[in-house]
Amino acid sequence: MDSRRAESFSDGVFAVAITVLVFNLLPIADRTARRLAFGGPGGLGHYWPAYVAYMVSFLTIGIMWLNHHTMLAQVSKVDRPVLVLNLFLLMGVVAIPFPTALVADHITGSSGQARVAAVTYGLVMIAISIGYASMWIYLAAHQEALGARRRIHRPRLSTIRFTAGNAGYLAGTLIAFVAPVAGLIVFGLLGVYYLVEHLPSLPAGDDDAAGSQAATEQS
Amino acid sequence: MDSRRAESFSDGVFAVAITVLVFNLLPIADRTARRLAFGGPGGLGHYWPAYVAYMVSFLTIGIMWLNHHTMLAQVSKVDRPVLVLNLFLLMGVVAIPFPTALVADHITGSSGQARVAAVTYGLVMIAISIGYASMWIYLAAHQEALGARRRIHRPRLSTIRFTAGNAGYLAGTLIAFVAPVAGLIVFGLLGVYYLVEHLPSLPAGDDDAAGSQAATEQS
Amino acid sequence: MDSRRAESFSDGVFAVAITVLVFNLLPIADRTARRLAFGGPGGLGHYWPAYVAYMVSFLTIGIMWLNHHTMLAQVSKVDRPVLVLNLFLLMGVVAIPFPTALVADHITGSSGQARVAAVTYGLVMIAISIGYASMWIYLAAHQEALGARRRIHRPRLSTIRFTAGNAGYLAGTLIAFVAPVAGLIVFGLLGVYYLVEHLPSLPAGDDDAAGSQAATEQS
Amino acid sequence: MDSRRAESFSDGVFAVAITVLVFNLLPIADRTARRLAFGGPGGLGHYWPAYVAYMVSFLTIGIMWLNHHTMLAQVSKVDRPVLVLNLFLLMGVVAIPFPTALVADHITGSSGQARVAAVTYGLVMIAISIGYASMWIYLAAHQEALGARRRIHRPRLSTIRFTAGNAGYLAGTLIAFVAPVAGLIVFGLLGVYYLVEHLPSLPAGDDDAAGSQAATEQS
Repeated sequence: MDSRRAESFSDGVFAVAITVLVFNLLPIADRTARRLAFGGPGGLGHYWPAYVAYMVSFLTIGIMWLNHHTMLAQVSKVDRPVLVLNLFLLMGVVAIPFPTALVADHITGSSGQARVAAVTYGLVMIAISIGYASMWIYLAAHQEALGARRRIHRPRLSTIRFTAGNAGYLAGTLIAFVAPVAGLIVFGLLGVYYLVEHLPSLPAGDDDAAGSQAATEQS
Repeated sequence: MDSRRAESFSDGVFAVAITVLVFNLLPIADRTARRLAFGGPGGLGHYWPAYVAYMVSFLTIGIMWLNHHTMLAQVSKVDRPVLVLNLFLLMGVVAIPFPTALVADHITGSSGQARVAAVTYGLVMIAISIGYASMWIYLAAHQEALGARRRIHRPRLSTIRFTAGNAGYLAGTLIAFVAPVAGLIVFGLLGVYYLVEHLPSLPAGDDDAAGSQAATEQS
Repeated sequence: MDSRRAESFSDGVFAVAITVLVFNLLPIADRTARRLAFGGPGGLGHYWPAYVAYMVSFLTIGIMWLNHHTMLAQVSKVDRPVLVLNLFLLMGVVAIPFPTALVADHITGSSGQARVAAVTYGLVMIAISIGYASMWIYLAAHQEALGARRRIHRPRLSTIRFTAGNAGYLAGTLIAFVAPVAGLIVFGLLGVYYLVEHLPSLPAGDDDAAGSQAATEQS
Repeated sequence: MDSRRAESFSDGVFAVAITVLVFNLLPIADRTARRLAFGGPGGLGHYWPAYVAYMVSFLTIGIMWLNHHTMLAQVSKVDRPVLVLNLFLLMGVVAIPFPTALVADHITGSSGQARVAAVTYGLVMIAISIGYASMWIYLAAHQEALGARRRIHRPRLSTIRFTAGNAGYLAGTLIAFVAPVAGLIVFGLLGVYYLVEHLPSLPAGDDDAAGSQAATEQS
């Protein structure tokens, strides 16, 4: 299958998953039905964790979409194992609104509840990280068969980079066991890190440049 | 109508339907609002059937998307009957989150309730299988008019293969009447079977290879 | 703007709107939480209007998607008024799950409630019909400016055809005031009528053939 | 990354976000479960603010989609900062159903509640306006690097125009503090203003013409 077809379907899934996050906000309109106010125990301000969780998960899914595109842009076609790995990856991404809701509802609860929410969030992130690493390793190992647009010449470095992401989410999850809020801050910082990582203009030959070049070529 | 246009719309429907599955998880965040824990009667672990059902249905819809693509990639254009058949097919796919919710909520209930849930799940799967078989038979019968990219030369074998799928879901549904959990395991195994069926690299001339070749040609 | 860009956005809206219909089924899984059965007062069978409403509205939105495509395939670009008319049209299509839910919940209620539900359904359909007629009339009137792929040579006939659709929904709505179920049957038959209308293979020069030809040319 | 890829993902997000608005209508079918009528305290007419809010927000998101397309059509590729700015922009757009629900539920409540709802709506609009202005300024400043399809020759005027939009939403929000309904009318008028702004056919060289020309060229 042409890799663009798989990308197109994945894009749709990402677009829906990122929009599903707003469903964690909609019940707030209902809950505050009798005493809508900015402040106070039932006011809109009371639900600040829901807004923060919305923003963090929105950026997280957005960044995952970017990385997903960069990854698939390396190859020109995909085989059945890639499609299956992709399904497992998307299964994790689509699930994100669930731990997001857990965190939004429980992070200000008792420390035991906050721990459960934050750790669950971390576990989903670890599962997704493993999904990305698996697909990347597979793509690097089968680059000829998949018609790589240019040599994926840094499998080891890339693996390390992904592993670093994994390690970050693993560390955040472990921290969340002891201090849930601190764990969530780690998750937020990991998102910001991935967000700004490529912000400086990149030298030619970089992953991202190659991705955009490939996209241009295929048009 | 160009077959790619129909595929594009179908892809969107598949992408939304697969993401709707997470709405079966979101209420768990709410239900556990007062006593969030990993274990215990109201803990996250208590809802394991919801997670299993999410994963099975996610993979099932994902595989259906793959097969849908392979099927439509055989032809270059579609006529009105194909579009109508496609609508009936999608009607079944979009409904999947409903029996998934039934199974998630009731499989651990009384055996009578589990039976109703598992059988309903099976009936929806049978309906979808019939939809696929109908479209495949129609495509094979009108391949010249639909501009088949290459001769669909094994209508009988293909029909048998689809019938095998139908028989599997039929058998699973019948088993579910007696032993609901066993029926669901059959449905899960059918998903795994379709998932791995094409994993080994295929000889030239195979359906899937033709699909990916056609996709390459049309770019 | 290129007409395909507008089509692509519209396709996405149609795909999501058609999938939203399943949200009218999901609460059934919840409502029957304590006494899941096929028959009986709280059984799955009790909610048959929800299944019928799901199927009718699914086919209706699917057919609207087909007609939307046929309509926009006539021109190669769209201007601001077309885009605005398109937004009003989509606004009606996206609203369909709402009257669908009203009908599903109330058609088996008192005759007063059934009337309100059926009439509301009809009013939404009339609004959408007006939207289609408006856009068709505009496209016919500005076909040169919009780069019509071939002469839209039957504006009057087309207008009549659309008006016939309008008249059908108007009649159905009036009937629904007196006999709600009869009105809904009219709406269902209108869907079936549009579904099969083009089923026989069409002579060259027909709208649908032109649409598919145009789609082929643009690839 | 090719700008069309970013547009395609954004289109999907817009399409889902605009469809999510109907979820503010669906509970009405449920709320009126016992006494469905057109008029009366629990009748469908009672929920008119929900219908108005649906229409205003639908058109607002639709117009934002149009402007988003016009903006991105100016350039042929996007870099990481554009993608990040785009994510923040979409984050605001996807959130619109939330203040829409607040307004629908509370605008007919006490003046204090109406104020909170209307001001929240305005704040989200201001955030989105800032997002558009930021991206426009960035695109204008980096037009060479981003392969502008033609010179973006009116950065200052454009900035002013966007600032005018910002000022309108700011004024509406301030008005909403004193008179919530009046503030909402301002928001509605701003939507209508953007809707008709480009209705007259534009002279060559205009933004919109360039966008459609660019779209034609890229096909």
